[in-house]
Amino acid sequence: MSSSSALLAQLIDALRCLPGIGPRSASRIAYHLLGRDRDGARRLSDALRDAAERVGHCERCRNFSETPLRPVCSDARRSGDTLCVVENPAQLAAIDQATHFRGVYHVLMGRLSPLDGIGPEELGLDRLEERLREGQVRELIIAVSATVEGEVTAHYLNEMARALNIRVTRLAQGVPMGGELEALDSGTLTQAFELRRDY
Amino acid sequence: MSSSSALLAQLIDALRCLPGIGPRSASRIAYHLLGRDRDGARRLSDALRDAAERVGHCERCRNFSETPLRPVCSDARRSGDTLCVVENPAQLAAIDQATHFRGVYHVLMGRLSPLDGIGPEELGLDRLEERLREGQVRELIIAVSATVEGEVTAHYLNEMARALNIRVTRLAQGVPMGGELEALDSGTLTQAFELRRDY
Repeated sequence: MSSSSALLAQLIDALRCLPGIGPRSASRIAYHLLGRDRDGARRLSDALRDAAERVGHCERCRNFSETPLRPVCSDARRSGDTLCVVENPAQLAAIDQATHFRGVYHVLMGRLSPLDGIGPEELGLDRLEERLREGQVRELIIAVSATVEGEVTAHYLNEMARALNIRVTRLAQGVPMGGELEALDSGTLTQAFELRRDY
Repeated sequence: MSSSSALLAQLIDALRCLPGIGPRSASRIAYHLLGRDRDGARRLSDALRDAAERVGHCERCRNFSETPLRPVCSDARRSGDTLCVVENPAQLAAIDQATHFRGVYHVLMGRLSPLDGIGPEELGLDRLEERLREGQVRELIIAVSATVEGEVTAHYLNEMARALNIRVTRLAQGVPMGGELEALDSGTLTQAFELRRDY
């Protein structure tokens, strides 16, 4: 869509870096911000700059952090006996909110995907191994998505922890709450059937 | 969703100014930008600031513009005889791309909506009237959406132009191209039926 100003065109183009935003949505957003919410645009500009410049990664768990160590990672009330590995900060937040887990985390910031050039190093698995070697961790909980890349990642983590004689567990797989059996994919249904438990 | 950093939380909050972005999408976007596209985030930050500070409105047509007058509004090849009134820059761009219209525009940047405090002044209709009084415009094309507020706006524009003996036209209403009759709303169908033309 041709636009009336070079700066407007630049803004529309820059908005395309947002995931899921195509040219049409980008135009709509730009018109909205310039027409009705310039304060919001300025606030977003500042927030983007501040976050891009000053948010780094926690030295211990790799989650986003402004400080070298996240408060949670230096919280003595959290048990270092259990370490939960998640793929990304959103999964960490979801688990931390939904469960009563009071152990510590390691955030991969991705999944093993050799074809995309994402190997153990990119996911900080060398640092995770060091952490496991320290000897405090007794259980490694693998909380990765049930996808092909997630399986590859889980397999690698399992090998690593077993070599250090650490117990490895995974999230249970099965019928999701509220899930209607006839609507489930056959893979999930097969899993749930084979892993059936005594009532 | 609790987040691991105050700046990250601030970014997620600031992203909510984007239309159609709720808390979940805002988190997803923030994680994406910080995890994979910091350059994009910086570019977007700059573009937002530049546009918010330096994009104003054309003195003549009210469209977004960095200069007092848009090039199109001072283009001598465009005919000042025909003036097309649109609601917003997106409509202008759509008409300019789809049609061969070579006249001039007035962009309302909204629709008359007294309940929301949007009266003739907020839409620059006083300035439009001055422009019509200059005597060059022979036809006023009303290109507003076929909504209640659009109708109110069209009615007002019609009265204004008729008082100055200027011909007023509206976009044709009827069956959209590719539209299946059985899928049309009854209002459109009634209009299309009543406004039927000789074959």
